[in-house]
Amino acid sequence: MKRGHRTGKPKGGHPRFYGRHAVIAALANPHRVVRKIWGLREVINALELPPILPIVYSDAADLGRMVPNDAPHQGVVAEVEALDDVWLGDVLEEGLKDEPGRERPILVLDQVTDPHNVGAIFRSAAAFDALAIVTQDRHAPPESGVLARAASGALEIMPWVRVVNLARALDEIAEAGYWRIGLDGEASEPLGKALEGAGKAALVLGAEGDGLRHNSMAHCDILAKLPISPRMESLNVSNAAAIALYAATSR
Amino acid sequence: MKRGHRTGKPKGGHPRFYGRHAVIAALANPHRVVRKIWGLREVINALELPPILPIVYSDAADLGRMVPNDAPHQGVVAEVEALDDVWLGDVLEEGLKDEPGRERPILVLDQVTDPHNVGAIFRSAAAFDALAIVTQDRHAPPESGVLARAASGALEIMPWVRVVNLARALDEIAEAGYWRIGLDGEASEPLGKALEGAGKAALVLGAEGDGLRHNSMAHCDILAKLPISPRMESLNVSNAAAIALYAATSR
Repeated sequence: MKRGHRTGKPKGGHPRFYGRHAVIAALANPHRVVRKIWGLREVINALELPPILPIVYSDAADLGRMVPNDAPHQGVVAEVEALDDVWLGDVLEEGLKDEPGRERPILVLDQVTDPHNVGAIFRSAAAFDALAIVTQDRHAPPESGVLARAASGALEIMPWVRVVNLARALDEIAEAGYWRIGLDGEASEPLGKALEGAGKAALVLGAEGDGLRHNSMAHCDILAKLPISPRMESLNVSNAAAIALYAATSR
Repeated sequence: MKRGHRTGKPKGGHPRFYGRHAVIAALANPHRVVRKIWGLREVINALELPPILPIVYSDAADLGRMVPNDAPHQGVVAEVEALDDVWLGDVLEEGLKDEPGRERPILVLDQVTDPHNVGAIFRSAAAFDALAIVTQDRHAPPESGVLARAASGALEIMPWVRVVNLARALDEIAEAGYWRIGLDGEASEPLGKALEGAGKAALVLGAEGDGLRHNSMAHCDILAKLPISPRMESLNVSNAAAIALYAATSR
């Protein structure tokens, strides 16, 4: 895949990943630059590390100070460089390889900013073999330890397309033959039904609370709701994404 | 419902709930004792409060110090008493009222301890009209602000049964006619198929990483897996629970 200038680089230095899944996946990703690693001796010794990587053997207290409050570092922290950009055009071209009737869904996130949720969504997207996750550059979290930890390795294998203009990206996705299904609690059509007619599906989710922005809705082909009880207003956005991916891939 | 002695009371004083959804839902629950409330004047004034409730008008900095790091309190914190116990027998009796073919599922959690995950599972369980959540008393989190916030009000409406012995509870659930489906990544049967034959369903989920304990598996009628890609080991447990609830209620 072509990669280019990344506008969504994390501010304030290099991301630090922690937790074994996140660090092992970063080390296994040929596109990921790992700059330095800190860890408990027994954890480090169990990893397959490239020979030139700077290693700092550390104790649990040192590692605890390197991660956000109470974060479970599992004995290892890695300083990494954010991945290069992935382009939407490349992803859509990759999607052309999918077997007809078994096309991988695209997940589009409209201003979902919580890194725990975005990380968990990466994990589910990889688990259900989504083609890519598309976010708007200015309204998505940067790569971070929290996000990578919640993604449990999926950040290294799931293409992440950051676009400047989400509406334009949605149009490009439609031109590539995807049926854009926006999730909206006010919609009348249940998701299962909205998926029946759809071939290739792009699932569009908004932030909790605010939901999809008006302009994003206007760039969907259909709005659909999850079949939830009126006594709850909504689901957690990562749970909604997981259900949508399950529904789209279990047709 | 009968209620009795609660063994799972939070240690170290009364739980403090924060965030508007959690606090408003606690105030609306006739079974919930709210002891005291702190908040921004404009937030407090917009709430319907019982006349005898002690109120402390506070500024954002004070509220920030009352909640865990960086927690979004949304201008209001409430000190509450944990709810009384809910008994499994009462829940199963309540389940008898369900229309045949539309029975509410029961969710059983085997040592899921993370309060964010348990809270998000409450939210999904309420959204999909589950009958109750069953946990093992010694291996489940107590009521807390983190859990209530993630539950987004669902802690007040979803019966939570804490049992001493999960295996015995699973047997009681089976005697009431529920088909106990244990989620296990190693199972050969996909969840959708396992649900086909089932009438009333009890969905049994283990902790991330460890999964279901051997003894819990032995007290299930069938083990089933979510249809995920081999490249991911598992889903986040709250996402797995959301999918299982969706699959069970969308049959």
